[in-house]
Amino acid sequence: LLPGASAIPVTPALLVDNAALEFNLTTMTSRRPGTALRPHVKATKSTDLARRQAALGHVGFTCATPRECEGLAAAGLGSDLLLANQVVDCRRLGRLVDAGHRVTVAVDSEATIEAAASGGVREVLIDVDVGMPRCGCEPDDAPRLADLARDKGLSVRGVMGYEGHLMHEADTETRRTKVAESMEILATVHSNVGGDVVSGGGTGSWDNNEVVTELQAGSYSLMDGDYGRLELPFRRALSVLATVISVNPKGWAVADAGLKALALDSGPPTIDGASVWFCSDEHIVFSGLDVRVGDRIQVWPMHVDPTVAKHENLWLVDGDTVLDSWPVDLRGW
Amino acid sequence: LLPGASAIPVTPALLVDNAALEFNLTTMTSRRPGTALRPHVKATKSTDLARRQAALGHVGFTCATPRECEGLAAAGLGSDLLLANQVVDCRRLGRLVDAGHRVTVAVDSEATIEAAASGGVREVLIDVDVGMPRCGCEPDDAPRLADLARDKGLSVRGVMGYEGHLMHEADTETRRTKVAESMEILATVHSNVGGDVVSGGGTGSWDNNEVVTELQAGSYSLMDGDYGRLELPFRRALSVLATVISVNPKGWAVADAGLKALALDSGPPTIDGASVWFCSDEHIVFSGLDVRVGDRIQVWPMHVDPTVAKHENLWLVDGDTVLDSWPVDLRGW
Repeated sequence: LLPGASAIPVTPALLVDNAALEFNLTTMTSRRPGTALRPHVKATKSTDLARRQAALGHVGFTCATPRECEGLAAAGLGSDLLLANQVVDCRRLGRLVDAGHRVTVAVDSEATIEAAASGGVREVLIDVDVGMPRCGCEPDDAPRLADLARDKGLSVRGVMGYEGHLMHEADTETRRTKVAESMEILATVHSNVGGDVVSGGGTGSWDNNEVVTELQAGSYSLMDGDYGRLELPFRRALSVLATVISVNPKGWAVADAGLKALALDSGPPTIDGASVWFCSDEHIVFSGLDVRVGDRIQVWPMHVDPTVAKHENLWLVDGDTVLDSWPVDLRGW
Repeated sequence: LLPGASAIPVTPALLVDNAALEFNLTTMTSRRPGTALRPHVKATKSTDLARRQAALGHVGFTCATPRECEGLAAAGLGSDLLLANQVVDCRRLGRLVDAGHRVTVAVDSEATIEAAASGGVREVLIDVDVGMPRCGCEPDDAPRLADLARDKGLSVRGVMGYEGHLMHEADTETRRTKVAESMEILATVHSNVGGDVVSGGGTGSWDNNEVVTELQAGSYSLMDGDYGRLELPFRRALSVLATVISVNPKGWAVADAGLKALALDSGPPTIDGASVWFCSDEHIVFSGLDVRVGDRIQVWPMHVDPTVAKHENLWLVDGDTVLDSWPVDLRGW
């Protein structure tokens, strides 16, 4: 039971434990200093949090959406942005380039190369399928696409390949072996494509991906509940503060954080010491805790990224002390 | 495949089919005219859509959060708002009452009655547990709570009981029988508590709940995919417009609507004619459709309420023609 966090007027509210965040940030930086880490902002969607990462030396960021690029640029963090996704209309990115920001976009097809060139983006990475069925070209096709991009006047900074299918592999050695196999594909493609950049990886491969020149980790700072199954040093920093609104004499209680405040895609949230029965839109029903109406409790989400995206701001806290309120200012597309 | 919706610049985007919406609204109104329907705005979170319901004669609204009450009041729709949820701090609602809006709040405990009285709310409904393990007092305890509320100076308008556990019961006759059993509890409590209002029900009990004086249906206007399992006349009006961003020669394609744009709590979304493989944060991966990069497709969410809450606006469309853009202005808490 959380004693108060009494300066937070409305629940549900997102809490970030400052000590856990700081530990996670510095732990990652010690292994991946400077440009060896390109933090992914899709997990956190906060320019204030990104500024903490930049202060540690990570001045380039990974984005999933044009809105994230625009928001980082507006916040003065646009010195080296990578949109690590395919974009069919690059004109918004081109406007950022025209305004003096550096934006590189991933491409995996003739159409997305054409979109980059015609939209005013000047730098690309060739995105390669390294084993997860999602975006990325066939490895054999990468040199042709790189040549096509250069013919269109684009600078090919290198390659990208995300081994996302391996991030949540629980066994450390299995994960290490499979990441190495996946990254062998990327290394081979890189040798055929050229450029300085090999971009990829994430929190689950933070200490075993030996190929990428820059790791695209994002979740490490706030830490998914689901990553807790892995042997990783990062600590859970994100929770949802909720208020108990009803206690039923038949043995359950209800708090005001439901599935509009908590992502359920990676499994139900947890409450320390309690059994969670279910979530509905605005409620979480649980048993096993001795609570009264008005008590505040902490709920732990299993998946950080979509949970953050449901909220307007993050409350940075040290125990019961509120240190800051950070807007979740990179939401939307 | 959607030919264009070309006036919509950014995907993913929420589409509302105007003809389906209009059909749903008028179908419900014909069965539940005027105050016999108190539309729940938690499903739609749009004051523009609420205005359409008010124009059909439904001038009282059901809300799940103080923010929804505040937004409706600011939009001039605050003549009779019900916050159908327990609230521990009613001061924001009291301020709406002070400003001349009518706000009634559900109470199920001494603590929430005290919160209503001290927060400046003057009218309550006694919320009763009618079979779903969530909020609501024991039926036998309702008269005591009503007396307590009156002692505190509150007006008890009546009772509320939500048979939410029966909304998605697929068999029509089973649903009718179980709803009747559940509502028998509420009718008995009402005879002991008094007041003019018996509030409850939802889309799944729209034509079989014979007890409530006002139905709290919300999903009927846009229609959940999951309600499609039931024999209901309402039509799917809400979809997510997505752009194909990658087509893999090994047989799958990727569009730009992932689990940040689509709620997955009631099951994976569907694409007509395709097999959906999985959703990640910003992607939906599927097979079985002959698509090219840049094509736009429609994705059908299974659960309307949390899907709407992920977006900034709704695009009201008639086929490929955009009629209006409605802000999702009732998000948050």
